[in-house]
Amino acid sequence: MIVRDTPSLIQLLLVMQGSIVPRIAGRIMAFALFALGVLLVDRHIVALPHVSIPAMGVFGVALSLFLGFRNNAAYDRWWEARKLWGQLIADARSLGRETQLFLGAGPARAAVMEGLAGFAHLHRGWLRGTDAIAAAAAWDPAAPDHASRRNPPDAALRAIAAVLRAEAEAGRLSDMGQRALAERLSGIALAQAGCERLASAPIPFVYSLLVLRTSYLYCLILPFALIENAGGFAPAVAAAVAYVFFGLNAVSDELEHPFRDAANGLPLDAMCRVIEIAAAEALGREPPEPLRPVDGVLS
Amino acid sequence: MIVRDTPSLIQLLLVMQGSIVPRIAGRIMAFALFALGVLLVDRHIVALPHVSIPAMGVFGVALSLFLGFRNNAAYDRWWEARKLWGQLIADARSLGRETQLFLGAGPARAAVMEGLAGFAHLHRGWLRGTDAIAAAAAWDPAAPDHASRRNPPDAALRAIAAVLRAEAEAGRLSDMGQRALAERLSGIALAQAGCERLASAPIPFVYSLLVLRTSYLYCLILPFALIENAGGFAPAVAAAVAYVFFGLNAVSDELEHPFRDAANGLPLDAMCRVIEIAAAEALGREPPEPLRPVDGVLS
Amino acid sequence: MIVRDTPSLIQLLLVMQGSIVPRIAGRIMAFALFALGVLLVDRHIVALPHVSIPAMGVFGVALSLFLGFRNNAAYDRWWEARKLWGQLIADARSLGRETQLFLGAGPARAAVMEGLAGFAHLHRGWLRGTDAIAAAAAWDPAAPDHASRRNPPDAALRAIAAVLRAEAEAGRLSDMGQRALAERLSGIALAQAGCERLASAPIPFVYSLLVLRTSYLYCLILPFALIENAGGFAPAVAAAVAYVFFGLNAVSDELEHPFRDAANGLPLDAMCRVIEIAAAEALGREPPEPLRPVDGVLS
Amino acid sequence: MIVRDTPSLIQLLLVMQGSIVPRIAGRIMAFALFALGVLLVDRHIVALPHVSIPAMGVFGVALSLFLGFRNNAAYDRWWEARKLWGQLIADARSLGRETQLFLGAGPARAAVMEGLAGFAHLHRGWLRGTDAIAAAAAWDPAAPDHASRRNPPDAALRAIAAVLRAEAEAGRLSDMGQRALAERLSGIALAQAGCERLASAPIPFVYSLLVLRTSYLYCLILPFALIENAGGFAPAVAAAVAYVFFGLNAVSDELEHPFRDAANGLPLDAMCRVIEIAAAEALGREPPEPLRPVDGVLS
Amino acid sequence: MIVRDTPSLIQLLLVMQGSIVPRIAGRIMAFALFALGVLLVDRHIVALPHVSIPAMGVFGVALSLFLGFRNNAAYDRWWEARKLWGQLIADARSLGRETQLFLGAGPARAAVMEGLAGFAHLHRGWLRGTDAIAAAAAWDPAAPDHASRRNPPDAALRAIAAVLRAEAEAGRLSDMGQRALAERLSGIALAQAGCERLASAPIPFVYSLLVLRTSYLYCLILPFALIENAGGFAPAVAAAVAYVFFGLNAVSDELEHPFRDAANGLPLDAMCRVIEIAAAEALGREPPEPLRPVDGVLS
Repeated sequence: MIVRDTPSLIQLLLVMQGSIVPRIAGRIMAFALFALGVLLVDRHIVALPHVSIPAMGVFGVALSLFLGFRNNAAYDRWWEARKLWGQLIADARSLGRETQLFLGAGPARAAVMEGLAGFAHLHRGWLRGTDAIAAAAAWDPAAPDHASRRNPPDAALRAIAAVLRAEAEAGRLSDMGQRALAERLSGIALAQAGCERLASAPIPFVYSLLVLRTSYLYCLILPFALIENAGGFAPAVAAAVAYVFFGLNAVSDELEHPFRDAANGLPLDAMCRVIEIAAAEALGREPPEPLRPVDGVLS
Repeated sequence: MIVRDTPSLIQLLLVMQGSIVPRIAGRIMAFALFALGVLLVDRHIVALPHVSIPAMGVFGVALSLFLGFRNNAAYDRWWEARKLWGQLIADARSLGRETQLFLGAGPARAAVMEGLAGFAHLHRGWLRGTDAIAAAAAWDPAAPDHASRRNPPDAALRAIAAVLRAEAEAGRLSDMGQRALAERLSGIALAQAGCERLASAPIPFVYSLLVLRTSYLYCLILPFALIENAGGFAPAVAAAVAYVFFGLNAVSDELEHPFRDAANGLPLDAMCRVIEIAAAEALGREPPEPLRPVDGVLS
Repeated sequence: MIVRDTPSLIQLLLVMQGSIVPRIAGRIMAFALFALGVLLVDRHIVALPHVSIPAMGVFGVALSLFLGFRNNAAYDRWWEARKLWGQLIADARSLGRETQLFLGAGPARAAVMEGLAGFAHLHRGWLRGTDAIAAAAAWDPAAPDHASRRNPPDAALRAIAAVLRAEAEAGRLSDMGQRALAERLSGIALAQAGCERLASAPIPFVYSLLVLRTSYLYCLILPFALIENAGGFAPAVAAAVAYVFFGLNAVSDELEHPFRDAANGLPLDAMCRVIEIAAAEALGREPPEPLRPVDGVLS
Repeated sequence: MIVRDTPSLIQLLLVMQGSIVPRIAGRIMAFALFALGVLLVDRHIVALPHVSIPAMGVFGVALSLFLGFRNNAAYDRWWEARKLWGQLIADARSLGRETQLFLGAGPARAAVMEGLAGFAHLHRGWLRGTDAIAAAAAWDPAAPDHASRRNPPDAALRAIAAVLRAEAEAGRLSDMGQRALAERLSGIALAQAGCERLASAPIPFVYSLLVLRTSYLYCLILPFALIENAGGFAPAVAAAVAYVFFGLNAVSDELEHPFRDAANGLPLDAMCRVIEIAAAEALGREPPEPLRPVDGVLS
Repeated sequence: MIVRDTPSLIQLLLVMQGSIVPRIAGRIMAFALFALGVLLVDRHIVALPHVSIPAMGVFGVALSLFLGFRNNAAYDRWWEARKLWGQLIADARSLGRETQLFLGAGPARAAVMEGLAGFAHLHRGWLRGTDAIAAAAAWDPAAPDHASRRNPPDAALRAIAAVLRAEAEAGRLSDMGQRALAERLSGIALAQAGCERLASAPIPFVYSLLVLRTSYLYCLILPFALIENAGGFAPAVAAAVAYVFFGLNAVSDELEHPFRDAANGLPLDAMCRVIEIAAAEALGREPPEPLRPVDGVLS
């Protein structure tokens, strides 16, 4: 995630970081040149058929509708993902308080909180497709074992439940405490399953096809409309339109997959660190430093 | 559900899988030919009445409104359906943890988890209208019996409740455990009823009529507007407009019924398998393999 | 509610059931004739003032905004109503399981489930303004008594609570069971109050005025814009525009009141039957048949 | 709130009640006269600069965006307010059932239900800024005392909690009952705080400025665009546009403050009466009559 | 937050407070002058290339889409932030009632409520980046200690949990009370984490770039379209468009960060005071005065 102070106007116009311009510059150039070519051919070589600009408007409105829909859906996914991780952070802190209340200080409480920190890393690893076993094992020695299961973070939660079962059988955890902590774990499992849902169920593929194909069609017909409507500005307008449509499309692509390690992705590393801090402070240990942005990007 | 890596540009423009082009190609062709016919008649045979393109815009905006509304409603249904199944997956895992906590290892816990796996298949069968009794019976011998009830998945949940009642009467399940597990079952029943709602209450039929009729009206009048506004491009613009409007319509049709076995439908088989894995891992058994996409489609 | 298989193209274009055409045909005809009259007067009798079509667009956009807003609000009400009934269905099944768990088989359990089926009918009667006392009394002999109260379904729920109180005093219902069943009843009461809210608080009346008046203004000025923009197509375009605007308006009117016994209303009878089936199956009785659509309409 | 049967067409076009026309008639007239003046000056005195109508469209779209946004936000506030009161009604009924279950008939139960009816009136008084102490005191003699606190409805809830505490100390309320009733009170407090939020946090003031200023700018420039686009219809179109924009604006103003005693405000008096009925029926007393609309308005 | 009575028309048009005009006046002037320059050069010096106004419309629609999206997202954040604080206020009052019920009057209850008031100030300090330690220490002597932790408000909640643990160990807090109060603290922690999420996860930076760059592009090309479409009105129209686009952009900037000490920011000081009042009234102490707006602004 890009973390910047509000930049000055000049910066905002020139900054490339977080911008999608580099990724679509090729297409912007191509359509500008195409518009220029159409203009030159029409003026100097042979009259090309013209399209009136309102005719473009007919499906320009429809294209805006598609792009707007896809952008909204992608942003909602990104924001839901952030909410689910915010829920995990709140649950980690609440688990810290509730183990204090129902288990008291002791090895069981430490095992629960360490297991939770391990869970956070295994969850991050699953979502991002990276190897987070070492980070998890630093908290929970059983993490490599969990990592061999079909769903490693779920295995970590089951291990926490086993600790609670043992405490209950030993009479050190009341019925009420059992239920309170079981509900907390279920809340964590629900947030985990929500993240998995976002990772495994992208926006239906057909929308990408529909949006992209309509964008190309539009940009290919547009120059024939610009000949008489924009004159010498035709290449500039074509480039601006391509920037707007392909730019929004590229943003949607990125936000649709909120867990990827991209410029606008969620800072899973930093959020795992927040959970580690919550676990350490709950156990009275020296908490690690929060992660800082590197070159304006929080990973 | 179609599972693809982000395809290259060329692939994206040419791919037919998941595309709705094949289903609407006939109509696209028909309207392109109609526009060509109108153009030829007007130029070579007899002057036809013209419509100005802004006059088309008047209800082009309204048509976009209809299509956009219906598309949003259909996508929301699809996404809600996916959320409800995600809820079922989380609940299955939580039931695994909570039976461990409140029932301990033993035949009762196995019966509950097996019953849940059977429930998932019966639920899938009900939603998709396929015969899932064999798959359910592989987990729960009572599944064929449940299948003879009005609502088979509800019968499966009642059977789980009967197991819990017997445990409670035998003193092996605390009051608190009874309540925790009963709430879990209620959560599962709520997700089930939500899926049934989506399956049995489609978007009101009147919207299909309104959208489709307006689309046809629009595409029939459009060529008379394109004569002077698009010239030789008229057939291309008519085809593009038909692609956009009927394409979005076809996508909405498909997403409106998220449980059907269609290219963009939800992968119920794969999600049932995830629940089977959760049940197997909770019981310490060897879990089955997750389902893999076949030719890019996860069923 | 209209229940149809996806109709063929021809059917979709010709079908009258569920269509709003019959209800607005008069207005469509009137505006088409008005446009024809304006056209004939302008061409053959006296030149009328013309309005440019983009001038129409200025408040065409605003009108689309109004219609779209009202349509969204009406559909959201319809869908929320369906969700609340889905919640009631899920709660009925959960009450079946939870009474089994906490009360066991016996007259108290039967009284609760019978009371719930009576509640469903009284609730339906209240919402639809029909007499459902006989249907309720078939399950619960006290239904006519409840029906004399200010809020009959609430009286039915209070009677269920009285059964639970008696069981608790007799020591046959644990504290935990009391609370679990009380929460279930509260969930049911919340869904009931939600339905009452939808029935008693329509979309503010001022929106109907705003939308309808703007639609009439628009359709009255439009023919003066179509004279030079649509030529001989003027009556057709005027009719199409009237169809689109008044059609959407009529759909919104119908969905705004989801409990009315209209073509696109909710199938309250069928959903009450689903609750009856859930009650009968929970009590091990022979369940009644689910209701089937009659001429494609489920009441 | 205006309660009307669906009016006939003639009524709908002529009715003034609930209409915002009276409040904006001055502005509609002013802009129609201004457009007439511009037209006459341009035709008979001196040629004025013209603006093309599509140039108006550029920020007509933006203006629609603003108006639509503000209208949606205002309607959402109105509907959320209605939902919160619906929640209070459901909670009142549930409290009636749950006190029956956990407290049984007796003075404590009566005190709780009377306190709740008093709370409803104090809450209404706070929200609407009217004096509801007498109405509250008719139920709860301590109401005038509560009314001297910073937050009178919160004081009423604390008094209910004090009754519960006394019952618990006297051993007449189980642990489970304490918790169930405490949660019910928390639900009521949450709905109360939600209403306070709506009353004290209006839509940011800057939006009113932005929308109103843009509307005036638009209506001031519009006549110069209508000269050649609408001819003799110019005053009519200017009036229609002013009606649409200022009308929607006036509706938003009214719905933004849902608790005010306005034509489209919420019927707080009637809803308090519903809560009184729930309390009376729960206590087995003769319930008061529901409030009826006076001249079609429910206060 | 700006608190004003609905101003008169004149005030509404002239008021500068809360207006974003001062912040964007420079840009409005610049684009008006630029449009004037283009007009003068074109008329008196050299013919410049013209752009037709519908060509502007093509991406004017897209720009409206971007601005509308960003505005909705920013407003939703602002409103969610207000909801979360409303939740905190309701939770503070409920904690007051529930400590009365489960702890009774005494030092433990006072410690809990004082800790909560301290929490509110530490939370405010964290969100706004101001020093709130003194305000917190006025309620809770341990506040400076909490302030040295990574997450001061979380430390305050842990301290409250420690009080509850001590009461439970001393037998003065029942199992049920432990659980009820633990859930209340979790609700508070969830609202806190929600606020932190809003503060630390702004709308992706890429949207600011996309919106601002498109706005500048649009306003730079617009004057070439206004030459023939708006004539002498060109500078006025350019200024109006700049006002609309940059104004909405500036509003979105402000609402996106709801906790900042800006004119349209949330009144955190006043809401902390409401929590202080709730704590004081719950403890039977003299509550402080609510904060009043200073020059129409509530801080």
